[in-house]
Amino acid sequence: MTQAQPTHTTHTAGRVRVLTGAKPTADLHVGNYFGAIKPAVEASLDPAKEMILMCADWHGLTDRAKILEPGKHTAGLLASYLAMGFSLEKNMIILQSEIPEIPEIAWYLSCVSAIGLLERAHAYKDALQSGKEPTAGLFNYPILMAADIVTFDAQIVPVGKDQLQHLEYASDMVKLFNNAVGRPVLFEPKALVQETQLLIGIDGERKMSKSYGNHIPLFAAKKDIEKRIKEVKTDSKGLDDPKDPETCAVWQILKSFGSKDAIDYMEDRLRKGTGYGYGHAKKDLMDEHERVFGSKRELYEHYLNSPREMAQLLAPSNSQARHIAATVRQRVRDALGLGIL
Amino acid sequence: MTQAQPTHTTHTAGRVRVLTGAKPTADLHVGNYFGAIKPAVEASLDPAKEMILMCADWHGLTDRAKILEPGKHTAGLLASYLAMGFSLEKNMIILQSEIPEIPEIAWYLSCVSAIGLLERAHAYKDALQSGKEPTAGLFNYPILMAADIVTFDAQIVPVGKDQLQHLEYASDMVKLFNNAVGRPVLFEPKALVQETQLLIGIDGERKMSKSYGNHIPLFAAKKDIEKRIKEVKTDSKGLDDPKDPETCAVWQILKSFGSKDAIDYMEDRLRKGTGYGYGHAKKDLMDEHERVFGSKRELYEHYLNSPREMAQLLAPSNSQARHIAATVRQRVRDALGLGIL
Repeated sequence: MTQAQPTHTTHTAGRVRVLTGAKPTADLHVGNYFGAIKPAVEASLDPAKEMILMCADWHGLTDRAKILEPGKHTAGLLASYLAMGFSLEKNMIILQSEIPEIPEIAWYLSCVSAIGLLERAHAYKDALQSGKEPTAGLFNYPILMAADIVTFDAQIVPVGKDQLQHLEYASDMVKLFNNAVGRPVLFEPKALVQETQLLIGIDGERKMSKSYGNHIPLFAAKKDIEKRIKEVKTDSKGLDDPKDPETCAVWQILKSFGSKDAIDYMEDRLRKGTGYGYGHAKKDLMDEHERVFGSKRELYEHYLNSPREMAQLLAPSNSQARHIAATVRQRVRDALGLGIL
Repeated sequence: MTQAQPTHTTHTAGRVRVLTGAKPTADLHVGNYFGAIKPAVEASLDPAKEMILMCADWHGLTDRAKILEPGKHTAGLLASYLAMGFSLEKNMIILQSEIPEIPEIAWYLSCVSAIGLLERAHAYKDALQSGKEPTAGLFNYPILMAADIVTFDAQIVPVGKDQLQHLEYASDMVKLFNNAVGRPVLFEPKALVQETQLLIGIDGERKMSKSYGNHIPLFAAKKDIEKRIKEVKTDSKGLDDPKDPETCAVWQILKSFGSKDAIDYMEDRLRKGTGYGYGHAKKDLMDEHERVFGSKRELYEHYLNSPREMAQLLAPSNSQARHIAATVRQRVRDALGLGIL
């Protein structure tokens, strides 16, 4: 059931506000580029969209044993998006932990959410099943995520199917809150469910993932990338055999970041086969990796080593985001009648 | 086991920082004065103590059906403490919902707290047993309370026995957090367990409580107070019978707020009995109520009707409290390595 939406929002006329989150993790790889960075960079160039890209460092704290990790990888994550061309012109990149309105609004959402909702959350149930005792942070994760969304009046949140529950929760919490205060105050977001585009790893079998150790880094030293690409598993077809690109991990990986020309060229040469073996294909993959990412490696490292410059670059985003968050917070507080004025 | 405490705190030399919370509720009565307001006002006059009196409006939101209540009663609570003489000279009165550092720090605490801790909390178990489905807010209540304490480097927190668990939780969370980040960052508070001084209600049987309807208001109209005092239940002893003050609700109630002279006078007259019946005692109780509270009623109503003046009066408290909270927040963020600078 669709409810009334608030009449006064912070939206920008003619643009749809899209919120995307990214957790800071070590060693970003081609799979991350394909699944998250590239779509965000492209969306940032779309004049119909107003992107808020949130580095969700608070979400990374929910495992007590790894509580110091997110802080170590935040700069790398931000530097990657900036180096790969995310446009700040009409969009924002923000650091979740710099927006205190989020946990405040999370508290309000927690006060309208029944405990059973959280007990049914996938991530929590998975943690229980794995025999670990989850932290309260993991348990409350869906609330913080809903707060991320509503704090910015987000209209669209792109999610994979496995994340859809979080958006349903956010919608539920919006309805519960608006009902509790008797009028539409929080904006109800829409999920944009995206087919999860899985990229094959260098083992040719599983999804590219750091935890499987089958990934190709984005910004490592050239020789390290070369080494990884040489390890991409292929079949035993010979130099002159026609080869099927669809079952060739080298081509699959190339497709995830290469130019149309590079992709078409390799496809053609593999199909024909003559004089084009997997060694050639790997060489071409390496060249394209160098062309796409190698050229940005310097910029990435520059940002990484100039946190002040990066902070300055992101300052307008932060200030715009804080303004939105403060406006929504005030709407919520007015509805609750908090304060003495 | 006592752990190392942080070496840099926000404490004021020569004074012990005491944090006391009070939930905004309707119709403050003599029982509230006796149990909460009077001790806080007295502590505010003690030069060895630095009091932070927190109006805990966020805590009042955990029942979804009553989510609009705390906002309605905040001004009344603040006006009561001010009218009754809480000294702001070297102390603070703050509104919890104006301190965004609290829910932020609550998030950090939730990320080190095992879920089982919260499941064992008394208030949560009571709610489950009463057949209500608790909100996530009620479930998370102990975390927010711990955050209230550690956000202000509180050294002492006075609690009744029924609240001791909350302080134990706060201590546990401090230890867990300090362990997780590998150094003492949060200050571990001490509970000051106080005998809960129960005041008898006008039914002469149960604790004075609004929910029993056996209370005497602080600042109601004189005739309403008179009416309530006339209803105080007494035994059937006659005008000239010697009466036992210890079993006389009139004297018990007088003892909770009266001057030593007034208390001694009534005790003496009751014991002697001659020419001093319960009617006389009630008249004396009424006079003392008028002397103690009636004289403040005007001031109370003045504050209540001048929210701007009250906000101005509390502005230095807020600014001092925000400064402490910001300092502690930065200590915590540095320990977690959050941010990019």
